[in-house]
Amino acid sequence: MAGPATYFDPANAPRLDAPVRDLVERRARVMGSAYRLFYDDPVQLVRGEGTKVYDVDGVEYLDAYNNVPSVGHAHPRVTAAMTHQAGLLTTHTRYLSEGIVAYAEDLLGTLPAAIDNIMFTCTGSEANDLALRIAKLATGGTGVIVSANAYHGVTTEIAGISPSLAGIESVAEWARVVRAPGTDVDFGEAVEAAVSELGVFGIRPAALIVDTVFASDGVYPDVPGLTRAVAAVRRAGGLFIADEVQPGFGRLGHGMWGFERYGLVPDLVTVGKPMGNGQPIAAVMAPHGLIDRFNERSRYFNTFGGSSVSIAAAQATLDVLRDENLIDNARDVGAYLLEALRASGHFGEVRGAGLFIGAQLESAERAVKAVNDLRERRVLLSASGAGNDSLKIRPPLPFSRADADRLLTELDTVLS
Amino acid sequence: MAGPATYFDPANAPRLDAPVRDLVERRARVMGSAYRLFYDDPVQLVRGEGTKVYDVDGVEYLDAYNNVPSVGHAHPRVTAAMTHQAGLLTTHTRYLSEGIVAYAEDLLGTLPAAIDNIMFTCTGSEANDLALRIAKLATGGTGVIVSANAYHGVTTEIAGISPSLAGIESVAEWARVVRAPGTDVDFGEAVEAAVSELGVFGIRPAALIVDTVFASDGVYPDVPGLTRAVAAVRRAGGLFIADEVQPGFGRLGHGMWGFERYGLVPDLVTVGKPMGNGQPIAAVMAPHGLIDRFNERSRYFNTFGGSSVSIAAAQATLDVLRDENLIDNARDVGAYLLEALRASGHFGEVRGAGLFIGAQLESAERAVKAVNDLRERRVLLSASGAGNDSLKIRPPLPFSRADADRLLTELDTVLS
Repeated sequence: MAGPATYFDPANAPRLDAPVRDLVERRARVMGSAYRLFYDDPVQLVRGEGTKVYDVDGVEYLDAYNNVPSVGHAHPRVTAAMTHQAGLLTTHTRYLSEGIVAYAEDLLGTLPAAIDNIMFTCTGSEANDLALRIAKLATGGTGVIVSANAYHGVTTEIAGISPSLAGIESVAEWARVVRAPGTDVDFGEAVEAAVSELGVFGIRPAALIVDTVFASDGVYPDVPGLTRAVAAVRRAGGLFIADEVQPGFGRLGHGMWGFERYGLVPDLVTVGKPMGNGQPIAAVMAPHGLIDRFNERSRYFNTFGGSSVSIAAAQATLDVLRDENLIDNARDVGAYLLEALRASGHFGEVRGAGLFIGAQLESAERAVKAVNDLRERRVLLSASGAGNDSLKIRPPLPFSRADADRLLTELDTVLS
Repeated sequence: MAGPATYFDPANAPRLDAPVRDLVERRARVMGSAYRLFYDDPVQLVRGEGTKVYDVDGVEYLDAYNNVPSVGHAHPRVTAAMTHQAGLLTTHTRYLSEGIVAYAEDLLGTLPAAIDNIMFTCTGSEANDLALRIAKLATGGTGVIVSANAYHGVTTEIAGISPSLAGIESVAEWARVVRAPGTDVDFGEAVEAAVSELGVFGIRPAALIVDTVFASDGVYPDVPGLTRAVAAVRRAGGLFIADEVQPGFGRLGHGMWGFERYGLVPDLVTVGKPMGNGQPIAAVMAPHGLIDRFNERSRYFNTFGGSSVSIAAAQATLDVLRDENLIDNARDVGAYLLEALRASGHFGEVRGAGLFIGAQLESAERAVKAVNDLRERRVLLSASGAGNDSLKIRPPLPFSRADADRLLTELDTVLS
């Protein structure tokens, strides 16, 4: 991504305090140039609880950014479930296990009835990679349509449909990138044009894949034209893959899934990040007919996908999500925050649903400065959007009104 | 894979006892046709300790198969390390952390000095996918050479170089498959021919990727011609990727890595399965120059790759491997087992090193029957090889002489 970013610039290492500098330099030596750190002054976190994290000096930060520890940092029920299972057995899916079947039934119960099969992976990247393989095998098509600044993951195949990774030139020749929401082109119209263009090149569409909150495009939870876009792809024989890795598991505050806002039933649904509250677990869900067609032509086994400990973490996470009414909390606190951000006068557009909000500033420079200033004031968040000019507010779901007030106060301080 | 297999045939579900049948049927409804179970009579494991696992009725089995729980099932030090870290914080690599840097230094210290950078992923598939991306970007080549029944993983890219998944027709057009060890063609000669053939098609080689124990080809720890093969690929501008996902972390009983047997220094090394004793962690290691070239053209971030809990598990696993002298144990018990298997008269070729052994029977039918008969006698293993005619013996590394004797006794019973 060109332009100002919220990442640490290694050239500034000499300016850091000695112990931090030492760790940054050791890290660079062994982890190399691909690893980036957040902030001009990197944070060394060692502990977390709910929506708070603590650095190596015991300083407390409000976490308004991390969506993976979705039911709260180090949630005791999730830790207990993992500990219990790790003390018993960690194994794969080629032995029978009650836990994985019960979890699969539980999770599929939150989706439309047609989506009745699940396949477990470890990461959202693997889930999207598998979903695309299934879509390509099932349709016989190869074309894939994505939004302008889409991010769907980092396998070779999925990097080819993730223009946000390395720009438009890294997009695969069988992919078509369409204008993102927020531009003056209707998303449905743009996808119709992409389907036509694929046709001109003799490429049959396999799928339209959409992060249903368009997170990397700048957070757009309600996109006019998505229904029309899905219809266009289906008419041409392609499938609709709902990438729920970011919006899923209740973050948007209404139901479990981003696609529910549209009344659409996807052909494939992928989930990941918050699924195990930090444990590496992700999945593809689809009607069994699609899975069967894939299975006639290929086979799939993921050694760690759906391993005993990962399933224990995922089940505990889902239980806590319900028992602590975190979706309602995301709706209530999210609405409160959205309204207050809009009323603050600091932002252009403030977009979002539940606890996923993009708040636009005048420029990337200003957004990056705000992110670093907030870090100094002990509030963690980041920037997003094609122009990197929006603050990305995406805290753990137990984020309270008091947390929201603290965030609003600090935002007011750094932006005034 | 055609022919007899060690997997459960769903058509036989009605023959199972009621509680097992019920779980098998519920499983099939939600997990679908891609999930396979081991054995004619699937095993429902609920607990493990060291080299023993226990089913839902409390029956004990000797595990002579699972390489993932490498330092032993439910090792208390690994569980304690995970529990401690999960109770503190699970987070990603964009915050500073001492643990990940210390682990990276520790692990890289077991490799040749030239290999000084590590990138963390969650699975061996992701590690091989990333290694191939790095190799392709760094060399400008696209051609990849693999062995005849190779298995390197399940992402779209890596499935294209894994003929064992769905046969030769599933291999990507930029891949070349060469005769595996065990045939009458020298591996070095075969790779030289493949390099030439790529040249004829105008495809520049990016890499030769080899599981250094040729596990899915039938277990070949010492392949004449591998050094020659590597030289041929390097002459043509390609790199050598050592896939250590199966042989790595001391399983072969001499040093940590399979490539050490050849005195070769790979360009890229991938690791996975036993790395966290079941926790989903894997990695790519390479000289920083290669990583830098990748990073100039792309970027990579894996949300769960190297997460705090995964690193804690990996560090504890590496500590236990050393503190309990498990590599020496793999060497000693492995040598004892290899000799006894050869002397037993039941097998054709018995190949292997340390605790990774392939013991060949007359046919796949006989191997599959032996695997199922052993399961009835409470010993778990599986079959391997292109012909699926070799028993695959690959137990957790604390496998003792007493465990070996028990395995030998039961083998004698079922094969006599």
